[in-house]
Amino acid sequence: MIGECLERVRKIKPLIHNITNYVTANDVANVLLACGASPIMADSPKEVEDITAICKGLNINIGTLNEQKKEAIMLAGRKANELGKPVVLDPVGAGSSLNRTETARWILENIEIDVVRGNISEIKALALGSISQSGVDANTLDEVTEKNIEDAVDFIRDFSLNHRCISVVTGNIDIVTDGDIAYTVYNGRKEMRSITGIGCQLSGLTCAYISANLENKLDAALAAVALIGFAGEKGWSYMQEGDGNAAYRSRIIDAVYNMNKEMLEEGAKYKIWQ
Amino acid sequence: MIGECLERVRKIKPLIHNITNYVTANDVANVLLACGASPIMADSPKEVEDITAICKGLNINIGTLNEQKKEAIMLAGRKANELGKPVVLDPVGAGSSLNRTETARWILENIEIDVVRGNISEIKALALGSISQSGVDANTLDEVTEKNIEDAVDFIRDFSLNHRCISVVTGNIDIVTDGDIAYTVYNGRKEMRSITGIGCQLSGLTCAYISANLENKLDAALAAVALIGFAGEKGWSYMQEGDGNAAYRSRIIDAVYNMNKEMLEEGAKYKIWQ
Amino acid sequence: MIGECLERVRKIKPLIHNITNYVTANDVANVLLACGASPIMADSPKEVEDITAICKGLNINIGTLNEQKKEAIMLAGRKANELGKPVVLDPVGAGSSLNRTETARWILENIEIDVVRGNISEIKALALGSISQSGVDANTLDEVTEKNIEDAVDFIRDFSLNHRCISVVTGNIDIVTDGDIAYTVYNGRKEMRSITGIGCQLSGLTCAYISANLENKLDAALAAVALIGFAGEKGWSYMQEGDGNAAYRSRIIDAVYNMNKEMLEEGAKYKIWQ
Repeated sequence: MIGECLERVRKIKPLIHNITNYVTANDVANVLLACGASPIMADSPKEVEDITAICKGLNINIGTLNEQKKEAIMLAGRKANELGKPVVLDPVGAGSSLNRTETARWILENIEIDVVRGNISEIKALALGSISQSGVDANTLDEVTEKNIEDAVDFIRDFSLNHRCISVVTGNIDIVTDGDIAYTVYNGRKEMRSITGIGCQLSGLTCAYISANLENKLDAALAAVALIGFAGEKGWSYMQEGDGNAAYRSRIIDAVYNMNKEMLEEGAKYKIWQ
Repeated sequence: MIGECLERVRKIKPLIHNITNYVTANDVANVLLACGASPIMADSPKEVEDITAICKGLNINIGTLNEQKKEAIMLAGRKANELGKPVVLDPVGAGSSLNRTETARWILENIEIDVVRGNISEIKALALGSISQSGVDANTLDEVTEKNIEDAVDFIRDFSLNHRCISVVTGNIDIVTDGDIAYTVYNGRKEMRSITGIGCQLSGLTCAYISANLENKLDAALAAVALIGFAGEKGWSYMQEGDGNAAYRSRIIDAVYNMNKEMLEEGAKYKIWQ
Repeated sequence: MIGECLERVRKIKPLIHNITNYVTANDVANVLLACGASPIMADSPKEVEDITAICKGLNINIGTLNEQKKEAIMLAGRKANELGKPVVLDPVGAGSSLNRTETARWILENIEIDVVRGNISEIKALALGSISQSGVDANTLDEVTEKNIEDAVDFIRDFSLNHRCISVVTGNIDIVTDGDIAYTVYNGRKEMRSITGIGCQLSGLTCAYISANLENKLDAALAAVALIGFAGEKGWSYMQEGDGNAAYRSRIIDAVYNMNKEMLEEGAKYKIWQ
């Protein structure tokens, strides 16, 4: 199932419109190419509607947000909705400033979002308006662990139901749910937190995966989550003496590039919650 | 000849003003350093004239275009023309939005451009106003192959004559022409398409090469095209198990860094068309 | 002493607000993660005060400056001063345009800066209003060598006294001074100049180091300078055949990631000037 999602991305090679931040744009572009998709970045209100129109999906990321990007997000999001193209929202840093929290909430209320992908602190900021003191990383107090996993799954399910979207919440344990079926995913390594933009990369991958698997978005989102996590494990296996977070960053993208159906199906570690 | 172009870049160390996109700016800066040039990125209308004035060449790239950059391009381009400094235009994504196509055409009509560097779909968008459905990559229908190479060379020659510029059109086979002499270049590997920004890097290199070889811009452009393509071959020869497009990205810049006159002259594969 | 500064960064994990350029933002984020800190990038006037408020320090970098960033810098800088949070200024390209020189001087006059980190040409532009013809790199005429080191130390000491800040001036020999005590640092390799953004990375590291060592900012700044220089030496020791500036860029960040107290104290090469 998730292996087939991977294959469809490689076959369809979806062109993905990214309105994203300048910190990790290069990594997002390269990971999209690695998975077989094709990226285009554009955030001017003068052109985002044209760009969305030729793309298979829209990936909205509110890192390094500014007023121009807000307008571009609104225009591109509405165009994507009008044309029935899937939209991913990555609420980077929601909770860190009123501007980001309110913008993310505005997007969620005014654009039909297919998948929200964030860490638990960002999702809590969207759901509860809570304030995070930890920037773009999850607050340690919020972390999803074996102890609170049931509550966390319930909380994210409700969030999905309230916003009629798939939620992908990443952390120690990842949660993927459409409000009904929920998956918890156990791939990845803690060292991935030492690389900037793994979350942004996953949001890009998720957009590529759902855009190429429109009939099966929940499984496609699960596949993307397992893919980046397992790529984190595969990439780590190639680490050499002297390597650190910068080498690891490349090795993870390389592992996405080299991943195939069989490897992903064998390596993915997840559980379904009824 | 092309080896001497390389040597002059290493000797003169031209300072290059880049008005470029935020996706690949880091790679462009590093590849300029790798070839012996020095990069500066500046895109505020408040300072681009000052920056162009201290630089040896101007590299205009319309990726992640916005209104501020348009104004900056106009000001910097006019200043470069006034001071007789060479200008390269990379019409990233022309054909993908009306905004990019029109801006690229406006630049071509209002600023004297020494070299236009793009893929075949972008050049067709400039020449014919055609629309591309393939984002920043060339449309497969447009691809230059052994079968249509004569028509393609004629088409690009006309484009160069009409716009009084050198054209560098990259793809399976690269074409470099000033409208009179034309070269086709056979370096490179298809895996280079899996890396974001190789085109942007080549535009930066081309600007450095023509800026250091003002008497011989056509050969300098040819040298830059052969350089990046041959660096793609050399870089590939160092690929290790587990490597993918992210490792390859670094290895190509590294190959530019390690390239010398003799290696380039031996490795360059091109043909002249009378 | 400097080893303890390193340990405090790893323990406190300071969240650093970066208003920075889009060329090297990714590297700055990754090197901050490598040293144990946590980065957030935000440059919209709508949110920089909120972001500064949750951070431990503010890193202002004027590369790819624009009007929005100027306003953001003003707002964030004043907020940091009001809340007593340390501020680093990296006057990238001061001297290259009137805009950058004047903006850097305006910041220095209107915001209390804890550390100014630049190359000698940038500092001269701030001190004397001199114009550089060499972009973001130091002019070779300005270079600090064994021959002019005494004059250079005196000059930088005066600059620190005049602006009541710590100065970190990097080049062949680095100078760190609060106007009273001065250190010269001899770590690093000349090949580091072939990588874009090492200076930006050091400014980020310096901000993390002083933010985690508020009682001892001069030593913290010295530690950051020795760290990046020694990481340049360690990273070089892992270079393989075919590697160039792109591999070296990763290897330096990796060396920061792998650095510990003992290694830094053993590897740091500096001298105190009374």
